[in-house]
Amino acid sequence: MKSYAKMSSLYAPTLKEDPAEAELASHRLLLRAGMIRREAAGLYSYLPLAWRSLMKIEGVIREEMEDIGAQEMLTPILTDAELWHQSGRWDAYGPELMRIKDRHDHEYALGPTHEETYTDLVRNELSSYKQLPVTLYHIQDKFRDERRPRFGLMRSREFIMKDGYSFSADQESLQRCYDDESRAYANVMRRCGLWCLPVAADTGQIGGSTSIEFMAIADAGEAELVYCDKCGYAADTEAATAPISLEDGEPGELEKVETPGCSTIADLAAFLGVPEGATRKALALMDGDGRPVVVFVPGDHEMNDVKASHAFGDYHLMSDEELEQTGLVKGFIGPIGLPEGVRACFDQSLKGSVWWAVGANEAGYHYVHAKLGRDLTIADDAWVDVISAKAGDLCPTCGEPLKLARGIECGQVFQLGTKYSEPMGATFMDVDGKEKPLVMGCYGIGVSRMLAAIVEQHHDEHGITWPVCVAPYEVEVVPLTVGDEVVWPVADRVARELVAAGVEVVVDDRKERPGVKFNDADLMGFPYQVVCGKKAIANGKVEVKVRATGEREEVAIEEVAKFLAEKVVPQRA
Amino acid sequence: MKSYAKMSSLYAPTLKEDPAEAELASHRLLLRAGMIRREAAGLYSYLPLAWRSLMKIEGVIREEMEDIGAQEMLTPILTDAELWHQSGRWDAYGPELMRIKDRHDHEYALGPTHEETYTDLVRNELSSYKQLPVTLYHIQDKFRDERRPRFGLMRSREFIMKDGYSFSADQESLQRCYDDESRAYANVMRRCGLWCLPVAADTGQIGGSTSIEFMAIADAGEAELVYCDKCGYAADTEAATAPISLEDGEPGELEKVETPGCSTIADLAAFLGVPEGATRKALALMDGDGRPVVVFVPGDHEMNDVKASHAFGDYHLMSDEELEQTGLVKGFIGPIGLPEGVRACFDQSLKGSVWWAVGANEAGYHYVHAKLGRDLTIADDAWVDVISAKAGDLCPTCGEPLKLARGIECGQVFQLGTKYSEPMGATFMDVDGKEKPLVMGCYGIGVSRMLAAIVEQHHDEHGITWPVCVAPYEVEVVPLTVGDEVVWPVADRVARELVAAGVEVVVDDRKERPGVKFNDADLMGFPYQVVCGKKAIANGKVEVKVRATGEREEVAIEEVAKFLAEKVVPQRA
Repeated sequence: MKSYAKMSSLYAPTLKEDPAEAELASHRLLLRAGMIRREAAGLYSYLPLAWRSLMKIEGVIREEMEDIGAQEMLTPILTDAELWHQSGRWDAYGPELMRIKDRHDHEYALGPTHEETYTDLVRNELSSYKQLPVTLYHIQDKFRDERRPRFGLMRSREFIMKDGYSFSADQESLQRCYDDESRAYANVMRRCGLWCLPVAADTGQIGGSTSIEFMAIADAGEAELVYCDKCGYAADTEAATAPISLEDGEPGELEKVETPGCSTIADLAAFLGVPEGATRKALALMDGDGRPVVVFVPGDHEMNDVKASHAFGDYHLMSDEELEQTGLVKGFIGPIGLPEGVRACFDQSLKGSVWWAVGANEAGYHYVHAKLGRDLTIADDAWVDVISAKAGDLCPTCGEPLKLARGIECGQVFQLGTKYSEPMGATFMDVDGKEKPLVMGCYGIGVSRMLAAIVEQHHDEHGITWPVCVAPYEVEVVPLTVGDEVVWPVADRVARELVAAGVEVVVDDRKERPGVKFNDADLMGFPYQVVCGKKAIANGKVEVKVRATGEREEVAIEEVAKFLAEKVVPQRA
Repeated sequence: MKSYAKMSSLYAPTLKEDPAEAELASHRLLLRAGMIRREAAGLYSYLPLAWRSLMKIEGVIREEMEDIGAQEMLTPILTDAELWHQSGRWDAYGPELMRIKDRHDHEYALGPTHEETYTDLVRNELSSYKQLPVTLYHIQDKFRDERRPRFGLMRSREFIMKDGYSFSADQESLQRCYDDESRAYANVMRRCGLWCLPVAADTGQIGGSTSIEFMAIADAGEAELVYCDKCGYAADTEAATAPISLEDGEPGELEKVETPGCSTIADLAAFLGVPEGATRKALALMDGDGRPVVVFVPGDHEMNDVKASHAFGDYHLMSDEELEQTGLVKGFIGPIGLPEGVRACFDQSLKGSVWWAVGANEAGYHYVHAKLGRDLTIADDAWVDVISAKAGDLCPTCGEPLKLARGIECGQVFQLGTKYSEPMGATFMDVDGKEKPLVMGCYGIGVSRMLAAIVEQHHDEHGITWPVCVAPYEVEVVPLTVGDEVVWPVADRVARELVAAGVEVVVDDRKERPGVKFNDADLMGFPYQVVCGKKAIANGKVEVKVRATGEREEVAIEEVAKFLAEKVVPQRA
């Protein structure tokens, strides 16, 4: 940077009012601070200030990728339909995949992710184990035609993503690539000022067997997760396999008790005088093959739809009619004496509990003191993993109670294995002379979403509070008057000295009232403000304000550049 | 850069054979050197080496843009059809514009250029002359569905472009923005190692009235241009208004001479014993309104189709039938005694000539010594500008003979005026309190095409000869053996010392024969090679080869890093 930027010519049109359409702080503040503009539903322009922050985020990503030997390149956005047919995703992807025909009626997809492209790229050129592993990536606009684009940069239809792909000879090498990327991703998030948890995740659309999501903790997040303050364990509530804090029932002989009207867990627990966790909730469903199943989960937990789909396919909860046809008694279903033909499954969290209170399959009756191994025996294949974790469940790593939080998915790493290389025929000659499919990993960062997540974590009621590492400018100089002979020369001098000290500076050189300038400065949220006013200058000083904390301090004019450079430089990414 | 790159893990698969589809050197060499790969017709991936060069080009663009106060940002690739309807280009653009529908059947274009987007962006926010001028730009993938994509990166369907837009209050301010951009563009080309001429250009699809193209001189260029070695004047042959080196006829009385069989210029000039330039070629055409016109041009020049379209609209040359109906005698048409109803026009280059040899409108006869002002008078509105310039025409600036060359269009600047702001209603309040349309300029650089142009200008029969300023790496270290105890430690040491000296280094650490390494080194074309072999090392030396010139020099091992750093650093962009 050769000179300071001037607010008068900076293209950053601020808004006085909150835009009606913006629910989230990041959406509202990025709009108001003149950093983004909506072009159409789910389509945003990044104005110069936002772009400066994005470039810093991209810079951090590039450094971390270079550090682990990942090579940057760029593939086209238009991806040939033929490749998507080969992988089977042309049909599987659904309407989120944006499709286009060229003048010869040939079909392409606007890449939402580029597994096919990269697999195709290397399939004729990575032919020997000697060339492996290789990790390639690019940073590029991606396209997903969201059914309901919303929340500004959080869920848009065109967004900036870093996506990378590793190609290995075996699982061990993939694991190393995956671990490298995971470490690099954690660094990226931390260096960009994000409090992010690496979270065990469901693998969704991309496929593959192992995955970590990098979740920025924020109330605005769409994902629900549990995490452990003590050991750092974290998981999607959908993916967590936390053992629950199981409250066992009372020991005793199996006994059928009358429980009139106790068709809900709350009623039953109250009636029996036990915690809800000591009862067993029964969920009756028809599995993907149309067969009746009853699943038992701890009374104080919910069955999770995604997990249940993994266990039972395209299932649905039974209707009253289906219950009746199957012979199940609503509200009183239990594992002992189930009607013939109904399969019983049990959430794995119940393994640690011995004494159960369960329905008696008879209206108005429950069993108490049902003992695992005595009154009911569960086959190995009847254990399933179907409940959502919740706050208070015990950490599977260290046993401490878990906390609940919401998270914004900013990055994700996957072990794909041979999911793409096999159908697409991307093979190599291994050291043993055999042809094998490449073992792949894929790694994504939502660059533009990160920007929104940073604002979610760094704002207050007045505006954004950029951390230095990704701030569009590091210091704003605010002369209370412009063009006069006292204040302006000081502001100009301070700004020049800051630039000379290597600091990124913008000067609010507009002929506006101080109040307007202060409001805009707080809204745009550059980390440090240098307020130049007559009174302080008379004493040879200017006022330095730390935007995030509101701290103010008077500093001698001739020292302020050094003073701020010493604060700013160590905070850079 | 923390350590040197290793050829063994670099993703740069070279090809031994010339790819059949590649006609141009840049296409062939970028493919062979493992720098680009074709994904589909007109769609290319930039592999890591090419990407490094592209990032350097983009870096130079960013520096030059910052220097003139242009602000970088990014708009979406998807552009709302509604905006294209407002500008009138949805229909005008034709099949080159790639169109897509979203899940709600709303139409978008994949931006081939973004006048509409930027005009729309600012139309509600640049409301006062106080905010002007503003210049915004982005670097982004663009899309044009070329009828015949070809020549690799030269004419592809998805390509990287820097496009910028300036918004001014008046023409004077636009001229300043335009001049700034023109200067910056010349700097960009020069700093990226391109011999580029700024060429007066036709304004084509974008519209507006004044334009300069930045043409990289190369035989592979699609554009034909004339330029002056002496003063730097250059123009598209389509746009040049060069006065021709006019050979005047002989003075004398008007005389009708029999010219049997002389229906071509060559025949006539030979028969009369005068240079072809002293004769007048007559072109009979029907103009866009269906009216007959005869245009006279110097006998040794061609009428240019683009210029003729500007003068006569959607014209066509007359058929024999139309000639007959109009009463024109093919091969003997002249300005004296034209049939009634036929308009005569004259290329402006003829203004400087007095004595003409022309057809007599009678089969087998011409007039000689026809004198301008005596035997024929030409009305002011009969002068048109329709000929292509050619080598030997005189420079309109300094009078020296022009040279002919072919050029690759790498950049273009336009004065758009109010072509977009007016129909789209992008107005501001001027200092006089009146609402006026913004006065716009637009400025484009074909970033990926620049890469191809650089290779066209920098290659030889063995491969690419990158200039340092845009080379993927600056130095390649070539150990003739790898992993041994003599050569490898020297290569490793030299590479490390080069990295420590800030030089970008790749080491060919592959266990390949020296011949393979030398061929690949020349093909990839890093500017300097350091060959490490046993013999030289025995004398404490390594061999430095300058790729572009082939010069070789032995340098002491302990001095080579400093030796090369001193050569490399001053050549950087």
